[in-house]
Amino acid sequence: MAILPKLSDEQASPAARAVFDDIRATRKTDQINDFWRVLANDPEQLAAVWAQAKKVMAPGALDALTKELIYVAVSIANNCEYCVVTHTEAARAKGMSEAQYNELMRVIAMASTTNRIAIGYQIEPDERFRK
Amino acid sequence: MAILPKLSDEQASPAARAVFDDIRATRKTDQINDFWRVLANDPEQLAAVWAQAKKVMAPGALDALTKELIYVAVSIANNCEYCVVTHTEAARAKGMSEAQYNELMRVIAMASTTNRIAIGYQIEPDERFRK
Amino acid sequence: MAILPKLSDEQASPAARAVFDDIRATRKTDQINDFWRVLANDPEQLAAVWAQAKKVMAPGALDALTKELIYVAVSIANNCEYCVVTHTEAARAKGMSEAQYNELMRVIAMASTTNRIAIGYQIEPDERFRK
Amino acid sequence: MAILPKLSDEQASPAARAVFDDIRATRKTDQINDFWRVLANDPEQLAAVWAQAKKVMAPGALDALTKELIYVAVSIANNCEYCVVTHTEAARAKGMSEAQYNELMRVIAMASTTNRIAIGYQIEPDERFRK
Amino acid sequence: MAILPKLSDEQASPAARAVFDDIRATRKTDQINDFWRVLANDPEQLAAVWAQAKKVMAPGALDALTKELIYVAVSIANNCEYCVVTHTEAARAKGMSEAQYNELMRVIAMASTTNRIAIGYQIEPDERFRK
Amino acid sequence: MAILPKLSDEQASPAARAVFDDIRATRKTDQINDFWRVLANDPEQLAAVWAQAKKVMAPGALDALTKELIYVAVSIANNCEYCVVTHTEAARAKGMSEAQYNELMRVIAMASTTNRIAIGYQIEPDERFRK
Repeated sequence: MAILPKLSDEQASPAARAVFDDIRATRKTDQINDFWRVLANDPEQLAAVWAQAKKVMAPGALDALTKELIYVAVSIANNCEYCVVTHTEAARAKGMSEAQYNELMRVIAMASTTNRIAIGYQIEPDERFRK
Repeated sequence: MAILPKLSDEQASPAARAVFDDIRATRKTDQINDFWRVLANDPEQLAAVWAQAKKVMAPGALDALTKELIYVAVSIANNCEYCVVTHTEAARAKGMSEAQYNELMRVIAMASTTNRIAIGYQIEPDERFRK
Repeated sequence: MAILPKLSDEQASPAARAVFDDIRATRKTDQINDFWRVLANDPEQLAAVWAQAKKVMAPGALDALTKELIYVAVSIANNCEYCVVTHTEAARAKGMSEAQYNELMRVIAMASTTNRIAIGYQIEPDERFRK
Repeated sequence: MAILPKLSDEQASPAARAVFDDIRATRKTDQINDFWRVLANDPEQLAAVWAQAKKVMAPGALDALTKELIYVAVSIANNCEYCVVTHTEAARAKGMSEAQYNELMRVIAMASTTNRIAIGYQIEPDERFRK
Repeated sequence: MAILPKLSDEQASPAARAVFDDIRATRKTDQINDFWRVLANDPEQLAAVWAQAKKVMAPGALDALTKELIYVAVSIANNCEYCVVTHTEAARAKGMSEAQYNELMRVIAMASTTNRIAIGYQIEPDERFRK
Repeated sequence: MAILPKLSDEQASPAARAVFDDIRATRKTDQINDFWRVLANDPEQLAAVWAQAKKVMAPGALDALTKELIYVAVSIANNCEYCVVTHTEAARAKGMSEAQYNELMRVIAMASTTNRIAIGYQIEPDERFRK
């Protein structure tokens, strides 16, 4: 169980409920993920993190799916169970195919290997990349 | 300095040199990154890692740039200086714009925050995501 | 389940039981956390880790609560579920208010972001900080 | 060298320069750390991160020094050279004594050990902590 | 639950089933670990990872048990529950005694501490180790 | 440069110098690694960490070289430059051959990959390993 309780709409403060409403409107869904319901125990932080998420994850120079793939990759590297599960789900909802998922996992697996090899041998960036 | 020496074409074994040649042919460049020159001290491992890289990073269901962005994201999360520098460079070579780079960094920054919040509060995946 | 069994007072060796007794006396509680009961499978290591904990976590130049906050911060960064849960509890037992908990989590969330930004751009310490 | 250039006041956009001015006013110093000068390449992100830092690091339920200690702890766990160096410096500027620094380092060292022991044995939070 | 289903022999593709058969033949067991059954959703990656595992974990200049101990150490540092549990089991199957397990855990605990101390003080490799 | 100065024998306190002497006697060398010279700024911690190192790294159920290999593996996973460089050197001093070093690096590279795959798919330990 989470360390703080998941707040229902009734339990949440008006400020937190306003964020819940914006999440529903933005994502066009009735569901509020537990992440937000737990974070609602600190309504100011809830508002700040949601504002950031809303802006950062919106399509821009990178499309929404690409952003989710990057998000999943970071979450796997950071070993965040909650984030891996929910953002893999989000990537699928945004159209990630099984073939794309396979390739995402292969790139992560490969980078995990080469990262450790470079660190293990303490290889420094090539002269020509150090300006 | 790296723990093992960077092997020049002359110092590399025939097996390692064959990999160098394939890297040059595949990437259409004369440059061999130091990563490969250090790894050439273990020619068998060099061949295996290069074969994996060649296959995994080739465009498929995900395009080559998207794969580089994922690679950079993992490398930043794993804190691999060599990998961050060289793959950011590679992403640029594959067409990453400054706007895309900004967005990549913003997604990584955001995921790093929410990953820690989810871990800090020990939030479990929502019931509906646990099949 | 843990890889090694949790040893009850009866199952623990005399050396391990002596540590249990010292934990009870020092913490003024009858409870022995599972961490110590599992570690009791290696009584020598149990004694060494407890001696270190007893000394390091005692109030000194930093008070006991500040030390717990630091402990929680490291445990979240290291993603240790056991440690996050038990030391958040310990911080509360030592008087951490909800407002302090919120601020702890906000600092951790913020540092997680700026750490990754600094690593992502490979920013080096300012000249004036390198003596 | 950082991947993006450090922007001088002259090179920074008006939006970025406004952030620089606020940093100077808030911190009562003429110095702008390189972190902000590099981040100035993405003025919008610069403004967002600075706004967060200004708010999160201000004294509240936790005093400013305690927040710095937590920041340093996270930065060491995340292995961010830039952050470790600059925030240890910041902690000193906010009054951290050598005795406090020693104790900070001892708590971090200890938590790093017990985190790995708990993970190594896969110890689950005690029944009584799982509500 | 895993994000992708565990494939039974009947559900697996012929290519994946061929890998299952080779795992059984190589390990002289009827059991296929869930890791492989999940990875079977990407048969090509399954074949690649198994080929690597088969080769890398075979006894060579290092014996099979020493390789398992290194594997467990990395898995604990990376905080992979699945890997910690299954490879500790594998180490036992290859003859790891309780005394060896205790020492493995002590070395990991110690390295975790000294790693953080070296990072915390930003200690650079001694002059004589930098050739 | 390290955050605290490296203390020469003359600068170190009598307590710290006693530890230096014991390091020299135990390791049969005149060299004191910079790690200890920096840690000497906190003589009590220096004595505690050295006592732990002396005991933990001594040959026992695992021989001294195996312990060094485990140490290097953890240090690479934790990305500690100082520790990777000095303990790879220590492993060589204890007889690690180039073939053994290659295999060490291959196991680490492989575990890094499979750790991330297991985390990425959120694979749970097989039923039969959960007692």
